[in-house]
Amino acid sequence: MRTLISLALLAAAFPAAAQSRPRARELGIPQAGTPGPLNAITDVAGVEVGLTTLIRGAGKLVPGQGPVRTGVTAILPRGRNDDRSVFAAWFTLNGNGEMTGTTWVEESGLLGGPVMITNTHSVGAVHAATVEYAVGKSQDFTWSLPVVAETWDGPLNDINGFHVTREHAAAALAGARGGAVPEGNVGGGTGMTCHQFKGGTGTSSRRFTVSGRPYTLGVLVQCNYGGRARFSVAGAPVGEEIRDLLPCYAPLPDGSTAGRPACSASSGGGDAGPDADLGSIIVVLATDAPLLPHQLKRIARRASLGIGRMGGIGGNSSGDIFLAFSTANPGAAADTGLVALTAIPNDVINPLFEAAIDATSEAILNAMLAAETMTGANGYRVHALPHDRLIAALRKYGRIK
Amino acid sequence: MRTLISLALLAAAFPAAAQSRPRARELGIPQAGTPGPLNAITDVAGVEVGLTTLIRGAGKLVPGQGPVRTGVTAILPRGRNDDRSVFAAWFTLNGNGEMTGTTWVEESGLLGGPVMITNTHSVGAVHAATVEYAVGKSQDFTWSLPVVAETWDGPLNDINGFHVTREHAAAALAGARGGAVPEGNVGGGTGMTCHQFKGGTGTSSRRFTVSGRPYTLGVLVQCNYGGRARFSVAGAPVGEEIRDLLPCYAPLPDGSTAGRPACSASSGGGDAGPDADLGSIIVVLATDAPLLPHQLKRIARRASLGIGRMGGIGGNSSGDIFLAFSTANPGAAADTGLVALTAIPNDVINPLFEAAIDATSEAILNAMLAAETMTGANGYRVHALPHDRLIAALRKYGRIK
Amino acid sequence: MRTLISLALLAAAFPAAAQSRPRARELGIPQAGTPGPLNAITDVAGVEVGLTTLIRGAGKLVPGQGPVRTGVTAILPRGRNDDRSVFAAWFTLNGNGEMTGTTWVEESGLLGGPVMITNTHSVGAVHAATVEYAVGKSQDFTWSLPVVAETWDGPLNDINGFHVTREHAAAALAGARGGAVPEGNVGGGTGMTCHQFKGGTGTSSRRFTVSGRPYTLGVLVQCNYGGRARFSVAGAPVGEEIRDLLPCYAPLPDGSTAGRPACSASSGGGDAGPDADLGSIIVVLATDAPLLPHQLKRIARRASLGIGRMGGIGGNSSGDIFLAFSTANPGAAADTGLVALTAIPNDVINPLFEAAIDATSEAILNAMLAAETMTGANGYRVHALPHDRLIAALRKYGRIK
Amino acid sequence: MRTLISLALLAAAFPAAAQSRPRARELGIPQAGTPGPLNAITDVAGVEVGLTTLIRGAGKLVPGQGPVRTGVTAILPRGRNDDRSVFAAWFTLNGNGEMTGTTWVEESGLLGGPVMITNTHSVGAVHAATVEYAVGKSQDFTWSLPVVAETWDGPLNDINGFHVTREHAAAALAGARGGAVPEGNVGGGTGMTCHQFKGGTGTSSRRFTVSGRPYTLGVLVQCNYGGRARFSVAGAPVGEEIRDLLPCYAPLPDGSTAGRPACSASSGGGDAGPDADLGSIIVVLATDAPLLPHQLKRIARRASLGIGRMGGIGGNSSGDIFLAFSTANPGAAADTGLVALTAIPNDVINPLFEAAIDATSEAILNAMLAAETMTGANGYRVHALPHDRLIAALRKYGRIK
Repeated sequence: MRTLISLALLAAAFPAAAQSRPRARELGIPQAGTPGPLNAITDVAGVEVGLTTLIRGAGKLVPGQGPVRTGVTAILPRGRNDDRSVFAAWFTLNGNGEMTGTTWVEESGLLGGPVMITNTHSVGAVHAATVEYAVGKSQDFTWSLPVVAETWDGPLNDINGFHVTREHAAAALAGARGGAVPEGNVGGGTGMTCHQFKGGTGTSSRRFTVSGRPYTLGVLVQCNYGGRARFSVAGAPVGEEIRDLLPCYAPLPDGSTAGRPACSASSGGGDAGPDADLGSIIVVLATDAPLLPHQLKRIARRASLGIGRMGGIGGNSSGDIFLAFSTANPGAAADTGLVALTAIPNDVINPLFEAAIDATSEAILNAMLAAETMTGANGYRVHALPHDRLIAALRKYGRIK
Repeated sequence: MRTLISLALLAAAFPAAAQSRPRARELGIPQAGTPGPLNAITDVAGVEVGLTTLIRGAGKLVPGQGPVRTGVTAILPRGRNDDRSVFAAWFTLNGNGEMTGTTWVEESGLLGGPVMITNTHSVGAVHAATVEYAVGKSQDFTWSLPVVAETWDGPLNDINGFHVTREHAAAALAGARGGAVPEGNVGGGTGMTCHQFKGGTGTSSRRFTVSGRPYTLGVLVQCNYGGRARFSVAGAPVGEEIRDLLPCYAPLPDGSTAGRPACSASSGGGDAGPDADLGSIIVVLATDAPLLPHQLKRIARRASLGIGRMGGIGGNSSGDIFLAFSTANPGAAADTGLVALTAIPNDVINPLFEAAIDATSEAILNAMLAAETMTGANGYRVHALPHDRLIAALRKYGRIK
Repeated sequence: MRTLISLALLAAAFPAAAQSRPRARELGIPQAGTPGPLNAITDVAGVEVGLTTLIRGAGKLVPGQGPVRTGVTAILPRGRNDDRSVFAAWFTLNGNGEMTGTTWVEESGLLGGPVMITNTHSVGAVHAATVEYAVGKSQDFTWSLPVVAETWDGPLNDINGFHVTREHAAAALAGARGGAVPEGNVGGGTGMTCHQFKGGTGTSSRRFTVSGRPYTLGVLVQCNYGGRARFSVAGAPVGEEIRDLLPCYAPLPDGSTAGRPACSASSGGGDAGPDADLGSIIVVLATDAPLLPHQLKRIARRASLGIGRMGGIGGNSSGDIFLAFSTANPGAAADTGLVALTAIPNDVINPLFEAAIDATSEAILNAMLAAETMTGANGYRVHALPHDRLIAALRKYGRIK
Repeated sequence: MRTLISLALLAAAFPAAAQSRPRARELGIPQAGTPGPLNAITDVAGVEVGLTTLIRGAGKLVPGQGPVRTGVTAILPRGRNDDRSVFAAWFTLNGNGEMTGTTWVEESGLLGGPVMITNTHSVGAVHAATVEYAVGKSQDFTWSLPVVAETWDGPLNDINGFHVTREHAAAALAGARGGAVPEGNVGGGTGMTCHQFKGGTGTSSRRFTVSGRPYTLGVLVQCNYGGRARFSVAGAPVGEEIRDLLPCYAPLPDGSTAGRPACSASSGGGDAGPDADLGSIIVVLATDAPLLPHQLKRIARRASLGIGRMGGIGGNSSGDIFLAFSTANPGAAADTGLVALTAIPNDVINPLFEAAIDATSEAILNAMLAAETMTGANGYRVHALPHDRLIAALRKYGRIK
């Protein structure tokens, strides 16, 4: 256990060299709009992200022992030192998933703590840890209804081994910070699969002007959804161009494959994977633009369109759940008196809609570009999206010269 | 037609002597909370109400000719001379009804014109009139999504005769004013039936203090719902005490009754009415307390509880639709720049919840107390709630001394 | 008036030669999935469509006199001779619009009459006509809560002249039939603008198999939304390729242009149009696959993704409202006893999601391909999407060879 | 730990003598409708309930050590031996609470496991246990999105001590059975406060006939909401009659009271309690009547009216969350093919609405009647509703002779 926590804290330390693979814009893939300096959710002032990454073991699955490919992501809307609530709202494109705490977000229009993301079966452990975190923050504390979301990392991870502990969640919270956000196989996104390539954690941001004032909207996704056939990048049918490299089972030390289809040396990958639709995507959208809760619901709903442009359909087994919050209006959650607020009028909200759509798409792509091929439980292997073949496909369809 | 309009304008003139029957508090019926000076929705500063009442003909129904027992109610959130939008939200307890315009209220959090109420089959005419009203208001006008609600006055009124015209709706709008609001058989409530007694238009208000500041919440109902058996006043099972006086058919001039059950002289009324559940209730809640749209949805939802305490169940054939708006924040709907707003924190919102529940219950009771027995199409008769027997029932159950 | 009705009936007669312009598939534009024989909503057995098209006058706008560029579309789920309700549900991507009747659709899970679509300010007239239609259908009739949707045809049409009458709506209902559905400048879609090209009425369908059984899903859109910049066809950034041909004002007989920007001979079109976002899209999705109401809501929600792939953002001024119904389960709306039903399990619903997305996109494109350049009020002109330049753009991006 | 589990199992064993206090009907308190033989949720065939009750320690609160006054309730829709999903839906009157799993209930219309109820800060532990339970049930198991609800037992229980473990939840699941359901200070309801009297677990049921067929609807509540002033029983203002007996602090062994107000010997109780609104209520409604998911949402919504009649307002700090399911249609959740279903038509659904309202009210009252005075952390004492004074109040208001 001690080892695990150390790993977690290490991961949470955001090693400078963590991400060597180029991101979408570095590859020249066309993206609408102007990103913030980090092109990350942390471009929104105050937002901090913490990641606990758990990678341990290999080979045959022994429930409770591993292999482990999972983690926890913590997003603190105003950072660790400012617990004031933010206006928030949520939306579901397809609800085969969990985001706890949303009933109170919907009712109150407020989010009073961090947004946590982990694997499906670790929601309980992370929920308990987040309550403990809240209890530890305040003597005046009364009750806590934490927001904990999940996607399923089953094929790669020993998900029924319940390897995420309260300590791992606490480490993600304790390690939260601003700055660049590691992407790919990190945090809650460690064991994720997206469009049947390796998915994971991704982020992006947009800067824009409303009524002469500059604002930022940032997105963080935990990307684990989608089939290959409809996968699209910048409008190009990349999924039709890269039909191989599907998830497959690499031979175990005894030469067996625990399942089929086996990875094929000749094809560089399997010919077919398990159900392409065992997936989900969590999208967290942060902005410093002053929006009221009912306006934030409109922002959250736009994440659907960002997923749709990548080829997502909100498949039946997908938990496509989105939460949007605004760090403006620090006094939003006063407990008495009159609250003084500001808001952007509906009539000028379209730049935020575009930012939400575009940053969601780019965060998905960044997650896939950063994620490296992973082999997990029973030799199950999910291939990284090959940059060279992606570029080739985009060239074929005139999107890169 | 000219006669009808004259009648309408007459009705809209709010004759001082229009309401001779005592209201709930005048009868000593216990009601929680403190009302405003008028105990009406117009206690909320700026709110104006206009009523067109159409009562014409008697005897056998001849479709298109009458008898006519119907009307139009217009509620202008800031009055006729202030067209600025108000924050608003809506809720449905049981949706067998119509309130147009709610899709944009839900999306924008704003209500940009009057709230109109009429009979079910006159929604179209009133909708058209309300668009015309908006077009006439503004040169800069672009489009209009009016809020028009309805309840069904079929048994009393020749509803399929479409007697409400655009002119009638225009008259209700033109006649809107502050001050005392006529109740009972007036406006859209003219031909309504409530708990199988005569229903109609009713209103009430509450004053209360939040964080040391005084506010008002007012309610107007168009009351047309509910069976007799569960009818309850101040907790007393009045419906069990007054089992007779059900709707019935009075003999026509030729001695026939167009339908059954016939009104019985001996019983003072019929023994059974048509389906007790052919009804609906529209509740409009206005407040000057500064609430954001998501908070107004909470207010609208509380109307359910006010109906429930009267014995309502939200029956399957009932359109129980509620709209709440706040006249605070006059700049809510700016079209550019930053909007400066105030809001009451959630933590001190309970007085508004209580006001919404209590004023809804009292407005229903006021509608029934004001309404007089009406005989309409085919001799269909709906009896007024008899004040003496109501008082007797309340005495029996210890609610009046 | 008589002339107008004759025009309407003429239009409703679906002249065989009405549509000479090729549709998306005829142009070789790649579309996912397999359409039904008509590639229309009428591929779903029983569905009938009626259209009233009103085109009259030219030149300077004289309110109440024209020019007129508008109409009415009627969709009868089981055709004119079968009034049994269908299971139904609705969804809103952006609610700056109207679809009456949805409160009861949401509550009951049932749609009991036609779906009507017209212009924003004619909702009242069409609502009244649809009530009259229902009254005329049944002696047992009690009340009607019609579904009437709208989009705004203001710049082309004298929308505040209220040229759509009850008779026009009645004509659309009376003229409803199966078979091929005219597209483009017809019915409620007559005066519509889509991605700043001429929009209107469009349709498409998909056939697919679930658990070995063949089903069809059909879509009809009234397309009036979207800016040019993000307009995308089959993934190609067509809006970036065709930046001219924006809506403009053609000179009036006196040489003036009633507004700016004026159409420029040299550019073949205006340099800029009015607010690109004065729009909306209504999507009606029909299927013969047996789905329950909560499943139909999932189908309706997928229309968002079809719009998103075309470049739609659900802009603030857009009323993007979708209704889905299933013609299976003819006994869905029994009024007593036990209803025997069938339904497709959620686990095999994905083909319907894909069909809903793909048929929505294709119906939008078909609307734009069929619509011809229209010049309306004050010389306002909206250009047709030029087929040749569209093809060129698709070639450039490798989508057509 | 072992001791605790033993206690839990003991509690889960439903000792026959557990409930010695009479229930509402035994006291002659008028209740509408006809209950099932047990007047419990278990009157719905197949429904099983398991309870783990944790009562340990007394005196001063030492976080992590106690005193402990909490527990877990498990409701298995088809019992422990039938894991087929049920149609389900949910509704929130006021959302200051948690019910996990509802996103998928809403999307799918299905509930695939037990409904668990515990204290607010033990949601995580119970969530984890319920996932483990699901994993243990099935080799084919893929993922689990458990339904775990909560109310807050903070003043009585060392809620931040996290005394509920996975084992306690497992014990509640393992101990689930049909038959009479213990009420009052048991299960998740152990430490609850209702209308400022001792609350807890309560249940009731109704039998009724629809289209000639008999059905049952049962309710289980975890009752922890409401102020005293509005508390009403059978219409009588009981809260006004019993103004004393408010929660108070009994002297600790050292003679101090950890907080104020101290329990007063003379008044038989404290003069004022903490915020009357620190509460919530979970309502689970089960029926064997065949209802579709959208109809079950209607049932769930009616729980609001049952709470309203008791004097509830859905206060801001209350998590009033309701879930309804139908045990009919055992094949509802097939994964392929066509599902054959039955459903009750909307037109005959009113008896279910009445049953839902009435059984909710009665279950609340039963919870309060069964609960005995409890003294917990820091001497905090919540008084039982005194039967004699309740009867006296009902006599005063003519509800009992």
